[in-house]
Amino acid sequence: MYEGHFPLPPENEHEESLTLQERSLRIHARHKGVIEVKSKIPIRDKNILSSLYLPPAAAIPPKEIANDPAKVYEYTCKGNLVAVVSDGSAVLGLGNIGPWAALPVMEGKCALFHTLAGVEAFPLCVSTQTPDEIVEVIRNISPAIGGVNLEDISAPRCFIIEERLKKEIDIPVFHDDQHGTAVVVLAGLINSLKLTRRDIGTVKIVVNGAGAAATAVTKLLISCGVNNIVMCDTHGIIYKGRGIGMNWKKEEMAGITNPENIKGWLSDAVKGRDVFIGVSVGGVLKKEMVKEMAGEPIVFALANPVPEIMPAEAIEAGARIVATGRSDFPNQVNNSLAFPGIFRGALDVRAREINEAMKIAAAHALSGVVSDDKLKTDYIIPKGLDYRVPPLVASAVAKAAIDSGVARVNIDPQKIAENTKNFIYEGELGII
Amino acid sequence: MYEGHFPLPPENEHEESLTLQERSLRIHARHKGVIEVKSKIPIRDKNILSSLYLPPAAAIPPKEIANDPAKVYEYTCKGNLVAVVSDGSAVLGLGNIGPWAALPVMEGKCALFHTLAGVEAFPLCVSTQTPDEIVEVIRNISPAIGGVNLEDISAPRCFIIEERLKKEIDIPVFHDDQHGTAVVVLAGLINSLKLTRRDIGTVKIVVNGAGAAATAVTKLLISCGVNNIVMCDTHGIIYKGRGIGMNWKKEEMAGITNPENIKGWLSDAVKGRDVFIGVSVGGVLKKEMVKEMAGEPIVFALANPVPEIMPAEAIEAGARIVATGRSDFPNQVNNSLAFPGIFRGALDVRAREINEAMKIAAAHALSGVVSDDKLKTDYIIPKGLDYRVPPLVASAVAKAAIDSGVARVNIDPQKIAENTKNFIYEGELGII
Repeated sequence: MYEGHFPLPPENEHEESLTLQERSLRIHARHKGVIEVKSKIPIRDKNILSSLYLPPAAAIPPKEIANDPAKVYEYTCKGNLVAVVSDGSAVLGLGNIGPWAALPVMEGKCALFHTLAGVEAFPLCVSTQTPDEIVEVIRNISPAIGGVNLEDISAPRCFIIEERLKKEIDIPVFHDDQHGTAVVVLAGLINSLKLTRRDIGTVKIVVNGAGAAATAVTKLLISCGVNNIVMCDTHGIIYKGRGIGMNWKKEEMAGITNPENIKGWLSDAVKGRDVFIGVSVGGVLKKEMVKEMAGEPIVFALANPVPEIMPAEAIEAGARIVATGRSDFPNQVNNSLAFPGIFRGALDVRAREINEAMKIAAAHALSGVVSDDKLKTDYIIPKGLDYRVPPLVASAVAKAAIDSGVARVNIDPQKIAENTKNFIYEGELGII
Repeated sequence: MYEGHFPLPPENEHEESLTLQERSLRIHARHKGVIEVKSKIPIRDKNILSSLYLPPAAAIPPKEIANDPAKVYEYTCKGNLVAVVSDGSAVLGLGNIGPWAALPVMEGKCALFHTLAGVEAFPLCVSTQTPDEIVEVIRNISPAIGGVNLEDISAPRCFIIEERLKKEIDIPVFHDDQHGTAVVVLAGLINSLKLTRRDIGTVKIVVNGAGAAATAVTKLLISCGVNNIVMCDTHGIIYKGRGIGMNWKKEEMAGITNPENIKGWLSDAVKGRDVFIGVSVGGVLKKEMVKEMAGEPIVFALANPVPEIMPAEAIEAGARIVATGRSDFPNQVNNSLAFPGIFRGALDVRAREINEAMKIAAAHALSGVVSDDKLKTDYIIPKGLDYRVPPLVASAVAKAAIDSGVARVNIDPQKIAENTKNFIYEGELGII
């Protein structure tokens, strides 16, 4: 116990993929959805009924909150409640399938939030895909919730929605497709640089892709001290003054990346680079390109289900470390390593936002789970469901929130780690 | 068991009111809110993780729903999920205290929904009080939910919001302050008329008050066959052409009530009336007025906490039957007798709305819980927490939904009653 290993044997590799897919359908149908909302308190007598619902007793908590709004965190569920909001515009690999079809995925996310960190999340699939309207919905429901997880909303609308909400409401807003991915990539990169004795200030990186995740990864790496990073999209390298295939987000990225203002294609961008990070489409990174990279290159080929290059090919071409988004290869970049602990830490200190310092702290906590003596090229990132992860991420995020001045309460991060661990193993989240 | 009595002794009458109020505060604080959101499924291995969250398996339920939107009821929580929406503009007796302070009451409501009928409800307190914006929020989140309970929204905005939503979304929308109250009043009235051998078609009623509940009570009674009903507000009797204190809702009510177009004050309106229904303020019905009513008058004095007339006074003045909104007098009109079963029945048949036929069916089911041999002047309405109520209300509402053509699936109402009963006593809601 408390070892963080799978309590049951991991996936049976010989099980047919179809069986797993059938099982998914059966699970969702048998339970009619995978999350539930319950009363914490059995209402069995008139005193409890009156306490919860009838005046004058039931009017007391509202009066207290009306007099001191901060007490909403003491007397209600708000502080542990997260809305998982999607418009269904970019769901898994399925594209724009709409809010109804997105629901099972959002429920799955809520189940992970709860299982891995005791965060109470509910799915909110919205029927509008207009950024202003999505912002209005979330702004208007914010009194009842402690945080917002944006999910599977297509770029560049996701940027507008998140940026506006961060300004307009005082609870954490986190687009997981962007920042969850960025945190796990940064964690993997920290360990990769350690293994290959590179320095983050001088490492040369190419990011292939210019969507939500690629943009967030690039920005977080820059926040963390990376000085030389180049982005590519389907029109090639992104540079200041490029005439085609630009939008306001890519203009912004052109301004903060590509310090030498190089031009050309991915095949040009990879030359002499230490790290390739693909958040794009399958098969675009060729063996020849890997051979053109710097010595001992690091390849994160995160497209799903087909990576930018298959791990075996990358290694044949000289890659020292390869990570993918898939659970059937080593080094899976899986954002469920990040979001449960990040929200746990942010909620426990009633953080006003999830800022860069908190994301960087999460990445360091995550990379630190792989101890130096176990760190090797096929183990740079903890495995999915490693139960050691959420408590460590939560406490690191809480500490960073306190240190950066966005926490509304000061809670000992060590207590947050213990509380999270207790929840994972014992099923009860204590009150801190 | 299955007797519907209190499993614990009812409220200790000698307990200080302050203690109950302190207890309310303690309960809310100790549990940090009274509802919880959980994963139904323990995520302990990679197969389950993949089924719920990772492609390709997790993409199967979304694909099925994208191909056939009705399957959202099979593969997700939508069908049993109700949003309890308030803008905090009219909370208990506290007035406009805003969305944060309203949260404990909404959570209490959600706890009752779950305890009494297995309905999974979550509080949604909105930060806008503009009807159009509230409509937009609810319309936009409707894909993820099976029904909407509007709560503690002040009149006349509540009418606009409900009427627009009923047109714009295809799930039940129910303003409980209006219709829950109306259903319980109708149930009490049915039994009162039975006891006093009056006929609903000829009974003469005065309703004092012109807010949300008073309006809904009046309309439901008219739907049910009452022909002679007069409403009063602070400006006296409402009649066609009254010049002062009118709004569009009162104009509408003037058009369908007061067939003799009488004018004057409450003291004029009560003369010769069989029934007084007060949904107004304490102390406005005087003993002299009760004496002016018809023989064996029926008095529903529902203002809280101080009724329009105290029961002892009303009886001294000749009232045969007195009901109030308070749990410490006989015949409490308590809408928790109605809303859990109404939503249970509506959700189980995937009703598109909660219509007049369903409300009337609920009232008849509720009045029928008091058997003829037990019916007496101080027992015309089942007591709060009578566990026989929700199953009977649910099955009656489901049957009415099917019969009136608003059900999307045809489920045996008897099964719905059994399923609801099983939930109440055994804590598990089976899948019908």
